[in-house]
Amino acid sequence: MVSDNHIVKAYTEEIAQMTGLISEMGGYAQVAVANAVEALRKRDSELAVKVIEDDKRLDAMEAQVSALVIRLLALRQPMAIDLRTVFVSLKISSDLERIGDYAKNIAKRSLLLKDMPLTGPINSIHNLSRMVQVMLHEVLDAYAAGNAEISEQLRVRDQAVDAAHTSVFRELLTYMMEDPRTITVSMHLAFIAKSLERIGDHSTNIGENVVFQVDGERPVERHLADDAQDDQPIG
Amino acid sequence: MVSDNHIVKAYTEEIAQMTGLISEMGGYAQVAVANAVEALRKRDSELAVKVIEDDKRLDAMEAQVSALVIRLLALRQPMAIDLRTVFVSLKISSDLERIGDYAKNIAKRSLLLKDMPLTGPINSIHNLSRMVQVMLHEVLDAYAAGNAEISEQLRVRDQAVDAAHTSVFRELLTYMMEDPRTITVSMHLAFIAKSLERIGDHSTNIGENVVFQVDGERPVERHLADDAQDDQPIG
Repeated sequence: MVSDNHIVKAYTEEIAQMTGLISEMGGYAQVAVANAVEALRKRDSELAVKVIEDDKRLDAMEAQVSALVIRLLALRQPMAIDLRTVFVSLKISSDLERIGDYAKNIAKRSLLLKDMPLTGPINSIHNLSRMVQVMLHEVLDAYAAGNAEISEQLRVRDQAVDAAHTSVFRELLTYMMEDPRTITVSMHLAFIAKSLERIGDHSTNIGENVVFQVDGERPVERHLADDAQDDQPIG
Repeated sequence: MVSDNHIVKAYTEEIAQMTGLISEMGGYAQVAVANAVEALRKRDSELAVKVIEDDKRLDAMEAQVSALVIRLLALRQPMAIDLRTVFVSLKISSDLERIGDYAKNIAKRSLLLKDMPLTGPINSIHNLSRMVQVMLHEVLDAYAAGNAEISEQLRVRDQAVDAAHTSVFRELLTYMMEDPRTITVSMHLAFIAKSLERIGDHSTNIGENVVFQVDGERPVERHLADDAQDDQPIG
C-alpha cells in the first residue's frame, strides 16, 4: 500500500514536472518574441544577441520534454486524460521551440538591419507583432487554466493576423517599387512579417492542442493554422 | 495461448499499419514536391491545382497517424524499440505534413506567377529544388531501410541547400535592384526558395528521427535543421 502510494506520487510528480516545463517554455517563448520585437524597434543589438543566445535554452527544454514523455510512456503507461496531457505536451513543446526559432530569426535580421533606415510599413509590422503577442499570451493562459473555450476567439485572431500580414506584404511591395533603394531592407522586413505570422500559426496550433487536451476532441476545423498560412500565398 | 497470440498479432499489425501510413505519406509528400516544382517550371495551372487539392490527403493521414499513436499507447503500452517507433512516427508524420504544406504554398504561388515572365534566378531555383528532392528521397529511403548511417551525409546536404538558398536570395536582390519591374515576381520567388529550403530542413528532421529510431540516440548536433535555418538569416 505504501509502495503503491509511492508509485502514484512519483507518477503525479512526473506529470506535474512535464506540465511545469511546458509553462516555463511558454514563458521563455513569450519573452523571446517580446525581446526580438523590442530589439528591432529600438535597434538594440545587445538585446538581439541575447535573444539568439537564449534560444538554446528552449531547444534544450524541448529535448527535456521529449525525454520525459518517452520515460513516462515507458514506465507509467498513462491513460485517458493523462495520455492526452502527455501527447499534447509533446506537440506544444515543439510549437514553443519553433516560436523561439522565429524570434531568433527576427533578432538575427534586426542585427543585419541595424545600420539601415527602417522606413516603410514598420508601424504595420509593430502592429502585427502586438497582435501575435496577444495571441500567444492568450493560448498560454488557456493552457494554464485548462480552458477549452478558445476556438472561436483563436479563429478570429488568426484571421486578423493573416489579414495584417497580407497588408504588410502589399505595403512592402509598393514601397520597394517606389524606391528601389529600400529593396534590401524591405526583403528582410517581409521575412520578419512572415516569421510573426508563423508565430501566430504556432499559437493557433497550441490553442488547438489545449482544446484537445481538455475535451478529447479536435476542433471541427483541423489545421486552422496550416490552412491559414496557405490561404495567404501572397505573403 | 490462442488469445495471447491474437493480441500479439493485432499489436504487430497496428505497428505495421502505422509505419505503412508513414511510408505512404512519404510517397505523397515526394509527389507533392515534384508536382509543385513541375507546375512552376511548366507553368501548369492544372497540376498546381492538383497539388493544392491533394494536400488534404496528407493532412488527413497525419490525423490518422496521431489517432493510431494514441490508440497504440493507450491499449498496447509499447516498450523500447516499439515505443521509439511510435514516437518517431508521430514526429515524422508531422514533418511530412509540413512538407505537403510547403509544396502547396509553392503551387499557389506558381498560380499567381503564371502570367508573369519568370526571369531572374529561375535556374538556380530549379537547382535548389532538385537538391531538396534528392534529400527527401534519401531520408525516406533511410526510413524504409532502417538505416542510421545518414547523419554525416545529411549535414553535408543541408549545408549545400542552405548555401544554394542564400545564393538565390542574393541573386534575387540584385535582380530586383537592376529592374524594379521584377519586384513582385522576385518576392514570390524568394518565398518559393524559402519553402524549398524549409522542405530541406524538415527532411533533415526526418533523418534525425530515423537515426533516433534505429540507435535510440539523438545525433550529437541536435536541431541541425533549426539551426541551419537561423544561420542563414539573409534568406
